[in-house]
Amino acid sequence: MKYSKLFGKTRHSPPCDADSVNAKLLTQAGFIEKLAAGIYNFLPLGKRVLEKINKIIREEMDAVEGQEILMPSLHPIELWQTTGRDKTMDEILYRTRASGDKEFVFGPSHEETVTPLAAKYIKSYKDMPLSIYQIQTKFRDEPRAKSGLLRGREFGMKDMYSFHASDEDLDDYYEKVKQSYSNVFTRCGLNSYIIEASGGPFSDKYSHEFSIETKAGEDTVIICKKCGIAQNLELVEVKSRLNCVKCGSSLEEMKAVEAGNIFKLGTRYSDAFNLKFTDKDGKVKPVIMGCYGIGNTRLLGTIVEAKHDENGIIWPLSVAPYAVSLILLGQEKDVVEKAEEVYEKLLKENIEVLFDERDESPGVKFKDADLIGIPLRLVVSKRSLEKDGVEWKERDQKESKIVTMKGLYKELEFALRGSHSLSSNPPTAGRLLHEFLNK
Amino acid sequence: MKYSKLFGKTRHSPPCDADSVNAKLLTQAGFIEKLAAGIYNFLPLGKRVLEKINKIIREEMDAVEGQEILMPSLHPIELWQTTGRDKTMDEILYRTRASGDKEFVFGPSHEETVTPLAAKYIKSYKDMPLSIYQIQTKFRDEPRAKSGLLRGREFGMKDMYSFHASDEDLDDYYEKVKQSYSNVFTRCGLNSYIIEASGGPFSDKYSHEFSIETKAGEDTVIICKKCGIAQNLELVEVKSRLNCVKCGSSLEEMKAVEAGNIFKLGTRYSDAFNLKFTDKDGKVKPVIMGCYGIGNTRLLGTIVEAKHDENGIIWPLSVAPYAVSLILLGQEKDVVEKAEEVYEKLLKENIEVLFDERDESPGVKFKDADLIGIPLRLVVSKRSLEKDGVEWKERDQKESKIVTMKGLYKELEFALRGSHSLSSNPPTAGRLLHEFLNK
Repeated sequence: MKYSKLFGKTRHSPPCDADSVNAKLLTQAGFIEKLAAGIYNFLPLGKRVLEKINKIIREEMDAVEGQEILMPSLHPIELWQTTGRDKTMDEILYRTRASGDKEFVFGPSHEETVTPLAAKYIKSYKDMPLSIYQIQTKFRDEPRAKSGLLRGREFGMKDMYSFHASDEDLDDYYEKVKQSYSNVFTRCGLNSYIIEASGGPFSDKYSHEFSIETKAGEDTVIICKKCGIAQNLELVEVKSRLNCVKCGSSLEEMKAVEAGNIFKLGTRYSDAFNLKFTDKDGKVKPVIMGCYGIGNTRLLGTIVEAKHDENGIIWPLSVAPYAVSLILLGQEKDVVEKAEEVYEKLLKENIEVLFDERDESPGVKFKDADLIGIPLRLVVSKRSLEKDGVEWKERDQKESKIVTMKGLYKELEFALRGSHSLSSNPPTAGRLLHEFLNK
Repeated sequence: MKYSKLFGKTRHSPPCDADSVNAKLLTQAGFIEKLAAGIYNFLPLGKRVLEKINKIIREEMDAVEGQEILMPSLHPIELWQTTGRDKTMDEILYRTRASGDKEFVFGPSHEETVTPLAAKYIKSYKDMPLSIYQIQTKFRDEPRAKSGLLRGREFGMKDMYSFHASDEDLDDYYEKVKQSYSNVFTRCGLNSYIIEASGGPFSDKYSHEFSIETKAGEDTVIICKKCGIAQNLELVEVKSRLNCVKCGSSLEEMKAVEAGNIFKLGTRYSDAFNLKFTDKDGKVKPVIMGCYGIGNTRLLGTIVEAKHDENGIIWPLSVAPYAVSLILLGQEKDVVEKAEEVYEKLLKENIEVLFDERDESPGVKFKDADLIGIPLRLVVSKRSLEKDGVEWKERDQKESKIVTMKGLYKELEFALRGSHSLSSNPPTAGRLLHEFLNK
């Protein structure tokens, strides 16, 4: 993509009403644009990151046998009356009256549609375990929409629902999803802590949150960094502040964003919707349910909260809008031609590249590149060509170096492709490269 | 995917309230499930088809330099008051009152958000032409939601908007999109006719519809099959019924579904939102706009209307939920093992396969396979193994034949991969194979 053609350019300064790092940086860098409080447009750069996050989520949900579906946002009010959540969640519901005076709710969650849907197909224990998920917009009339993408009124979510014939089967599956959630956050370049939490309006049973350490976090969490145990401050306080039971280390407080949560719903929704099955012994029993949520747009904001410096965003390669930021400096014919040649070659090699070919000063271009935060910056200039090369600098490193034209594609291949096969913490192009060079 | 694990099985009979071929077949085959009038769940099979359609749409929009974005569904009412469409489209608007008593509309279209969004970035003629699109849910309170996915209250749409410095530039781009729309329908296995149409509430200027011939169509269209000219009956009637001016042939009436439409909006929305630019000569002028819509969920329904027989759906390979329907007949150990072996091999070769390994009669399995409509059916049975092979039958052919195990993957490779490289009418596995065998 040529930067001059890209819809959604950088701005000189962040919008004055941005109340968080993610809103500031994502707006200033041209990823999102606010329409109203808690309601955002995703511009091409933001949409690309969102799709990369979605791809990671889909792969991890598919790996635990999740099947993707898509449920509607318009829910007949009767469904919400059935569970009583038309009253318990009344304050955040967007309601509408349609032709024929029927009332609908715009789904803030989908237990009320997924349970009757599952009831059409689950009849026997043989139909379970079953796990279905969707990536769908949620609508919640948050009284305090704030913190950019962290607390929105219209936001994206992956919500998965599982159905089981026994508590033991739910317990087993719940542990698998716990691992798959950790994988999602790790692959997005984040460290997550699993926290025991109260279920809120979604569950009477126990649940877990996945917390990411960031300064903008809404939650205060007590963690033992040694053994990875964490708890919500509200739960801990009633027990008084103790050292970690497991290892005896002292506990630390951290600000965190809740990036995902999982709930054992038990039979709350299956009871409400009469979702029953016939067991091996011929007995009719209620289905046991679990549900599992990750806010994909919130995750995008969380990554920015966790991965930035004073100059802008630092995208992990796995979710970066482009892998390479190619910058042309100068408008001399041979320099322009060489930069175009590198651009064409990268496109041909299917390396995602944003090519800044504008006639702007080095200062403007470097500032924009740092703000946008693409992991690897390649500069073609008169100076680099004197050494028959391209200047190579990673966003998270201070130093740059010249890579010869001849060696460029081999190094790129290694730095960029390497990460796709790793399921653990995705290294940046920089780290991978340094490992390679130090061999 | 093993059929026994798939969420969304076939039903014995279509739902009694289904009022169209697409609603009947898609529901009975387990692709969709109605939540309320004009509001549907997409089950895993339906979601897979929808994603294939979306991929084709994205590729064709990207080919005309469209950049993908995502705009919100919640629109502040003030935006709709600005264009006056809060009144002209009043009947179909879903409205809601949010906290602070603010009123919102759930977007039935996105001119009201895209125009002010573009205004933040378009300042000069150098910022154009620009084309941005999204695939997003639309909400329209249709008084007569009917015909399954053809006329819904909540439905998917790809909507693209283009911005130009001159009418000539819009005209050029409009012709390019016309071609890209024809490509989309062709790649989905459909014959489309381009029809001059009135713009309705979306446009004062002229516009074109893309009509697909189907018996369930809402529109009556007059076409000249010889030269491909078509017009809406309402427009033609005022002129009286003539022979085709161009070739003198007699005109035919056909029932059609409108599967896409394109509009020259001119300055209607840029005037309303003060979207102006500075031209080469320094003059400030209003931006000229076009907009281009394809209902992706409606397109899914249209394909079913156009591609089915008395036994079920006949998916074109390009949008089929799976390329191969693998059927195991019998539960003898060697037959089961061979079927499993073929299944594993297909998965390894990245051939999308739905494996019906249930312990059901051949009649049940064949009936389900015909209903679901996957293009290629492979049967592993005692009989086929006696000939050291697999029974090969295409959904749109009557005959079957035995393909040896040895020759199977080569034939599959040819039949299935061949279609991806073709940009013209995608052949079914059957047609491709027959061409191959007749060489």
